[in-house]
Order: sequence, then structure tokens, then C-alpha cells
Amino acid sequence: MEIAIDSSNTQKFTKASDSTTADLASKSIIDLLGNTQIQKAEIDGLIVSSSTNDSYLGNIVSEMVGIRPKFSTRVENLCNSGTSGVMLAYSLIKSGLCKAVLVTGVEKQNSQGNKLTWDRSRGVYDMPIHWAALYAQNHFRSYGTTEEDLAIISLKNHANANKNINAYFYDKQFTYSSIVNSKMVVEPLKKFDCCYPCEGSSSLLVLSEELAKRTEIPIWIKGISQNNQGASFASISKNLGSIISTRIAARDAFQQSNLRPQNIDIVEIHDAFSILELLAYEDIGFVEKGQGRKFMQESTLYTNVRGGLLGCGHPIGATGIDQTNEIVLQLQGKGGLRQKKGCKSGLVHNMAAAGTSTTVIVLQK
Amino acid sequence: MEIAIDSSNTQKFTKASDSTTADLASKSIIDLLGNTQIQKAEIDGLIVSSSTNDSYLGNIVSEMVGIRPKFSTRVENLCNSGTSGVMLAYSLIKSGLCKAVLVTGVEKQNSQGNKLTWDRSRGVYDMPIHWAALYAQNHFRSYGTTEEDLAIISLKNHANANKNINAYFYDKQFTYSSIVNSKMVVEPLKKFDCCYPCEGSSSLLVLSEELAKRTEIPIWIKGISQNNQGASFASISKNLGSIISTRIAARDAFQQSNLRPQNIDIVEIHDAFSILELLAYEDIGFVEKGQGRKFMQESTLYTNVRGGLLGCGHPIGATGIDQTNEIVLQLQGKGGLRQKKGCKSGLVHNMAAAGTSTTVIVLQK
Repeated sequence: MEIAIDSSNTQKFTKASDSTTADLASKSIIDLLGNTQIQKAEIDGLIVSSSTNDSYLGNIVSEMVGIRPKFSTRVENLCNSGTSGVMLAYSLIKSGLCKAVLVTGVEKQNSQGNKLTWDRSRGVYDMPIHWAALYAQNHFRSYGTTEEDLAIISLKNHANANKNINAYFYDKQFTYSSIVNSKMVVEPLKKFDCCYPCEGSSSLLVLSEELAKRTEIPIWIKGISQNNQGASFASISKNLGSIISTRIAARDAFQQSNLRPQNIDIVEIHDAFSILELLAYEDIGFVEKGQGRKFMQESTLYTNVRGGLLGCGHPIGATGIDQTNEIVLQLQGKGGLRQKKGCKSGLVHNMAAAGTSTTVIVLQK
Repeated sequence: MEIAIDSSNTQKFTKASDSTTADLASKSIIDLLGNTQIQKAEIDGLIVSSSTNDSYLGNIVSEMVGIRPKFSTRVENLCNSGTSGVMLAYSLIKSGLCKAVLVTGVEKQNSQGNKLTWDRSRGVYDMPIHWAALYAQNHFRSYGTTEEDLAIISLKNHANANKNINAYFYDKQFTYSSIVNSKMVVEPLKKFDCCYPCEGSSSLLVLSEELAKRTEIPIWIKGISQNNQGASFASISKNLGSIISTRIAARDAFQQSNLRPQNIDIVEIHDAFSILELLAYEDIGFVEKGQGRKFMQESTLYTNVRGGLLGCGHPIGATGIDQTNEIVLQLQGKGGLRQKKGCKSGLVHNMAAAGTSTTVIVLQK
């Protein structure tokens, strides 16, 4: 049985608002439900992906949106929460337990998750930028990548966000100069090499083949895979040249999909820091290790058209869902102002905690 | 493809200790891994069920126990977290994404989850005992159930716990008199009609048919189903005579398993309050509505042999796992001091939040 994604919805990413976590999630689901051929009564699963401390969100949101699903839970997996939810929705349907599973990612701006306090191996260097800076320094040393290269990635993603009304930086204009000259935070990463943790919610509907065939333009999940290498920076820092979890998750998702990197037209990459987009080009397999910089300059692959985490902001649990939604919209031809031409196959790359885990989803029209 | 549970492990339920959530979970998994034919490298999934606020527990525990699974996440679903994890493990394997998924339930004594603060419909009556007392009063009025009947249930479960070294009340002797005369908390429920929220961890290993056949006595998941009726007491209080989520989850799990209530030899019931065991007899379908009291007096079904939540204590995320483990052990003939004879089919009943959600698992040797 094939599994598809039908409708999607994302609410505007913002600073902290007065809305509760459940409010944010419900608003996104209600808007989605107004925009699908699937009836409310047919929805038999709800997964809420969130790093907030709100208990029983699956059931609270079910009640608020008026569904009584067969399965409901909250999933917490730091920045990788969103696509972990999508993978579980896929498995619930593929296993025959459910037929139509909503996945909602939601985060408040003050959610925990910016630091992994458990990881004492990081000592006082406990902010994510500390490990991202090590990845960057290594890439600079090994392959001649420069601060200017990173600024170009950040500029591209911020410019893309100017066409995405839901992006946190939608109406903020960045220039190459404003990025490359922004304040150094941890060398070589500057303020605008870093994503901004914000608030937001994003939802999608995963469907069985039978239900998907009733929808207008179902987008098929051809491959979905995750890999986990532990939780600490120490568990992965032996090799600063690669994000191993990304390599393995991408390899497995491609294998499942019978597609290859060269078949992908559009990709959403987890650019929590600009350097991570460069590493992802290599580790997903679009280009050989060390050629990320060249790929960035020469490739015609559409990357982070949504604006990436750099341009959209990063509401932890919602990010993986909104990344997936962007690929779904582009493959459906519903990308609006930012629609790219000829997109048949797309890929989602969602990570957490220094790249200790990655989920990759391969989607096709 | 059939899905089975092989090994299980439960750590002693205690008051708050100095161990972290991750410590507790890891200890249980390490003990389990020492007791299965499945190799560590074959384990490709880990789900941590917990209502604590600890982020990224799936990956932290993976690192601590030395596995690098294909899929890992934390699941939070209040008191129903444990079996929600089992249901997801089942779906991950049945869907073909994984082959061997560990599920660990773990809780610290100070975990949130004793109150559902979101549910303002409860006003100042925000402790679980308030709704349990309403269920009890209704049963008393409708069917002549008495405080003494509830004391008999509590006594049975506490006595069962005296044979379960992991139970919180393992070495505490209760008498009928000490229970029926315990302090009234919310009429008609007394202190020992209520479970005690404690700390603990419990793990099990869910396997594909192929891997299960390599183990000694695999216990097969013949039916697994959940139902959700919302989150608030208001969403379910129109009918105080039944736990609707239990009725539907049990009906669906029996249907999937091709078994009927009369085929079940042993059951673990979610007796967070003594009255809930009585209601469950009826709502699972062992007896007609209103006959729970009679069933309690006359039935030969083995109920809460582990000691139930009343005798074992209730470490929120761990409870559903330990309930499942009890049925697995009994069907395997590994019940030790409390082994019951002739158990071929068993059932697990795990609920949350005023019975707004229930998971039912039907297991068979």
C-alpha cells in the first residue's frame, strides 16, 4: 500500500504570543480541515510533535478541533520532532491501524530545546552554535570553504523567505553585506548564519492509498527513514566532516524509494546554521564530500525555497512539518509566489541536536 | 506478518530517588538486553514513554545503552503513554520500517501528570479522584455497588502485590479493615481506593515474526487498539455509567484478534482507583453493564495479578509497560511466585485522564 500526504497548513511564525500551544496547533488543524476532501469523521489519528512541556496535547487538540481519533499522542524528539511524527503517521497507516493521520508540529518561543543540558560533554559550550562552529571550522580547513560562502547560503534562504508570508523574516530585507558583516557569535559563525527560535504551528494529513485517491493531488511518500547516533556531541565528534545520521537516513530513504539524489528536483534542508546546508548537500549525496561549496555555486537544485530555518525561523516541533509541507505544495504546484517549475520529486531533511539524528523523506507526485 | 513481545524487564517502583529519568530507563533496558536472544545491533527502534519534561530521551537513552537505532523518539500521552508506545512499536514493525523496537516507560515521582491543568471545566476539582468519585457514586446509585465492594478489589490487588517484588507496596500488608477504614478522601473513595504516584521504569522488546521465531517463548500481539474521546472530563461526563474509550478500544482489539472476552484468561486493568476495575470488567465486555459487582464475586478470571496500580504504585509512563509485561510473563510461564495456571490469552487495559483515552492489547502464547 502506498501512503500519501494530501493537505497541509502552516500558521505564520512569530515571536511569543498569548496563544497556548493547544491554540496554535488547533488553529492550524482547523484551517487544514477546511481545505481537504477528507471528512473530519474519517480522521483516525493525531500526532502532535512538540518540545513544550504541555501534557496530553494529542487529546487536548483532538477535543479542541472536534475529532475522536483511534490513535493520538504527543511526540518529543527535539528539532527532529516534526518528521518523527510523520514517520509514525506513515507506520500507523502502513500497518493498517489507521487510515488518515493528522500530524501537527507546534512550538512556543520559550519551549525548552535550545540547549541539551543532559550533554555534559559539552562543558560550558552548551549552545548549538558551539558544535555548528566546529563543523564550520573543519569544513573551512578541509575544503577551503569561507565565511563568504556561508553568507551566500544565508542570503539565498533569507531572500526565499521574502516570498513566504508565513516566514518569520518574510518582510525583512537582507543584503549580502548585512549578513557577512553581522555580529560574530562563535567564530566563524555570525548572527545571520544562525536560525531564530520562534513560535508557530504547521500541520499535514497523511493518508492511506485508498483515501489519497479521493484527493486532488496526493503526494506520495516514496521513502522515509531516520537514523540516530546518540545524543551527545561527543558521540559524533570523531568525524566532523560528515553528519553521519544524515548519510545513513538519506541512503535508506533513497533505497526505499528507488530514487537517487540526481532524481530530486527540490529539497528542504535543515539549515539551523548556514554551514549545515553545505554539509547536507554532501551528506544527502547530491555531491561528493568536500564539493558542497562548488555545488552551491553551480547546482540547479531548488534548495530551501520556503526560506529554510534561516529565513523562516525555527519553531522546534513545527519545523519538520513545515519543511514537508513546502515540498508537498511545490509538487502539487501550489507554491504560489515561490512555485518552482517542473518539480516531480522532492526531499525533506530534518535533524536534531548536533546532527545526532536525522529524518529524510522522499516525496513524489 | 505477526508481531510479538519477547523479553521484558521492570525495575522496582520506589519513592523519588537520585537517579535521573535517563538512568532509570537505561537500567531497565540494560537488564532486558542481558536477557534476550536478540543482539543489541539488531535493535532498530527505541520508544521512551514518559510524562517527564526531559527532552530527547529517545536519543539520550540510546546512547546510554549503546544502540544506534533507525527510529527513536519520546512519546507523551499521560497515563496512557506506555501502551501508546507499544502501539507505535507494533506499527513501526508491521509497516516494515523496523524489526526490533524497545519500548521503555519511565517516570520520576515528581513528573507532571497528576493534574490536567488544561481542563478548566473541572474548576477547583482538578485532581483525578474528583472524577473517579463521580464514577463511583453513579455506580453505587445505579447498581447498588458499595464501599465494601471497592475495598475487596483494593484488598485483592494489594495482596497480589505482596508477591511482586517490584511493586511499591510489595512488603506492606493490608487488611480488609485497614482499607475500608482508611481515610475518606472524596466520598465514596478512601485513601486505599487510590493508587500512589511513584517512580519507576519498565521495558519490553517488540519483534517482527522473523526475529520472534528465534526467541524462546514469543507472546503474540493479536489485537491492539486505542480510542480517544477528548481530554476534558466534560467531554465524557454525559455518560458516567461507562468508560466509552474502553468500550471502543476493547471492541476493536477483540475484533482484530478474533478473540472474545470469554477467551481471556488473565487481565491487567487500569485500577488507578478501585472503582475503575469494576467499570472495566463491564466496559471490556467480561460481563454486562451493571454486573461488575457480581462478576467480582464470582469470576475465575485472573485480574491484576501484578498488583494493579493500587498495589504496584503508578509511575505514569511505566505503568502501561509493566501491565503488558505482566501478561507477557504469565503467558510465558515466567510469573514466578505469582504464576497462574493455564494462561493462554491475556489482555492489557491502560487509560488516561478520566478515561478519556484507553489502549487495549490482546496477547496470546
